[in-house]
Amino acid sequence: MKTIEWKEDGVYIIDQTKLPHQLTIIKCEDYERIAIAIERMEIRGAPAIGVAAAMGIALAAKKVASGSLEEIRIELNKAWHRILRTRPTARNLFWALERMRAAWSSADSPSEIVKNVIEEAIKISEEDVAACRAIGKFGAELISDGDRILTHCNAGGLACVEYGTALGVIRAAHESGKKIFVYASETRPMLQGARLTAFELKIEGIPFKLITDNMAGHLMQKGLIDKVIVGADRITRYGYVFNKIGTYSLAILARAHDLPFYVAAPISTIDLNVTPDNVIIEERDQNEVLYINNTRIAPEGVEALNPAFDMTPGGLVDAIITDKGVVRPPYDFSLLLRQGH
Amino acid sequence: MKTIEWKEDGVYIIDQTKLPHQLTIIKCEDYERIAIAIERMEIRGAPAIGVAAAMGIALAAKKVASGSLEEIRIELNKAWHRILRTRPTARNLFWALERMRAAWSSADSPSEIVKNVIEEAIKISEEDVAACRAIGKFGAELISDGDRILTHCNAGGLACVEYGTALGVIRAAHESGKKIFVYASETRPMLQGARLTAFELKIEGIPFKLITDNMAGHLMQKGLIDKVIVGADRITRYGYVFNKIGTYSLAILARAHDLPFYVAAPISTIDLNVTPDNVIIEERDQNEVLYINNTRIAPEGVEALNPAFDMTPGGLVDAIITDKGVVRPPYDFSLLLRQGH
Repeated sequence: MKTIEWKEDGVYIIDQTKLPHQLTIIKCEDYERIAIAIERMEIRGAPAIGVAAAMGIALAAKKVASGSLEEIRIELNKAWHRILRTRPTARNLFWALERMRAAWSSADSPSEIVKNVIEEAIKISEEDVAACRAIGKFGAELISDGDRILTHCNAGGLACVEYGTALGVIRAAHESGKKIFVYASETRPMLQGARLTAFELKIEGIPFKLITDNMAGHLMQKGLIDKVIVGADRITRYGYVFNKIGTYSLAILARAHDLPFYVAAPISTIDLNVTPDNVIIEERDQNEVLYINNTRIAPEGVEALNPAFDMTPGGLVDAIITDKGVVRPPYDFSLLLRQGH
Repeated sequence: MKTIEWKEDGVYIIDQTKLPHQLTIIKCEDYERIAIAIERMEIRGAPAIGVAAAMGIALAAKKVASGSLEEIRIELNKAWHRILRTRPTARNLFWALERMRAAWSSADSPSEIVKNVIEEAIKISEEDVAACRAIGKFGAELISDGDRILTHCNAGGLACVEYGTALGVIRAAHESGKKIFVYASETRPMLQGARLTAFELKIEGIPFKLITDNMAGHLMQKGLIDKVIVGADRITRYGYVFNKIGTYSLAILARAHDLPFYVAAPISTIDLNVTPDNVIIEERDQNEVLYINNTRIAPEGVEALNPAFDMTPGGLVDAIITDKGVVRPPYDFSLLLRQGH
């Protein structure tokens, strides 16, 4: 079962806001529904958002396939700008949109545009599966038999098309026969760890326990954690990692306890063109903090902060596991990306 | 309004599991109800638990006031052992029980026992109010105008009788006219920050925002926090601080960002007779993690850890603010406690 799938009659996505209790599939028939799904986090995770963006453009092209070249380009531009505005932090969204623009820019007939964008969207989706498998293969080398691994948020199949980045590494280590144990931090406010990572680990039969985010330091102090692996939403040229809020705290804690801290992400997450200060950390609706299960937890009138991501300097990251191999500090991704990737 | 109050017809406590949405008062007419209230966290916070324990013994004595000396002593012993087993970590529980035993041991008639234990329980309660005021006065000296202070869990009036320890310091600084801003971490799993600290700060009119526990590092990195102040459940002779789970992570983060980390607690929280390894960290029901507002957040069959406290080494604590003054490292509380306090 894929997180997101292109079919003849629409784009099918698993509604991640309903997991783990309901496995609901949303059928998206136009790009607006894709954009809304990204905004509502019905689909989330940087790689999955990139694939959704690409498929949103493909849906837009299909809808106006019978129009003139001019009409199609206008509509694709509209869809492109709509999807561009859904969420600001994950690099993969912009990367996928850039690829889609290139796919239609080179075409000079309506039918060629439609063909190109659909093919490109499917290709981006297939590449993600292959990239996650490669990340898993490279990353599993860093995992030892018996390791107790902490992961944060969900960087699993649900954050990608089917295999996962950080969870791809964990999955590959498990599949290779290594006995591992996972601690999944619940990841407030949206509880992706408790809802999604727990869902995936349970299905895979990988032994794990759930913890609240504030237990990580205590477990490290008690010697219960050997390694930390997380995903990434954007990685800058010199290895600054933007990922789910709480990642930076875990990196500090890992360093304080002399534990390896690994980031797993496809190279589509790497952005050579920004400095850390220029990456926008999305500030989401404070009601995501103030309400849980539609019940308000704080008194009326109380305000909350809700930054969805934070930034971990490369100096705290022991390795970045990409689909092109494991990269070690000091990071400079410009070479890797120029080598034709 | 007091968190816990002795009245002629029973002990009245605010039901903290119902806050902030309902202000419900529980009337405890026997020690068993007090014990259950401590176990259920209807009353919580180390100082408040100590007062509740004392009042539980007083209730037990009242109930058997017409019995023989032997009967009263047997009943008080029963109550004492019942209350002793409610929760293992907070020092104040054991400290209060020791005082209560001394109060009845020296008496040699039923009426004297009843009189002594009721007086002692009320005295412990009154001393807590005075101790928190003193902590506030001493601690406010450490707070500067303009400070943005992070606090964890609830070390407020609701954790004591009425004024609070860490929140007592914040309150005293605010009352003295210093402009301060508080970040309250929600404190999973029981959300004492979101429910109780937010409730108190709002009533006091102290400006604040709520954050999830995993946002602390990010805020420190952004330069939004100047100081961290928390309470304590037990402090060992050399300044090892046992407090709500997540405290240790905050201490590591504070040190990594060169921010002062303060602990505020009455000397009744200090335990000269244990080493850190011998303090029992209560492991509570995992359903406190797995359910929020009676709704399960994780898939069925998933297990969670739920250590309620963690240990922060004294080396990470810049000052411990007691009712006898501010103590700085290297800590050795044996002198302070021998000086007649």
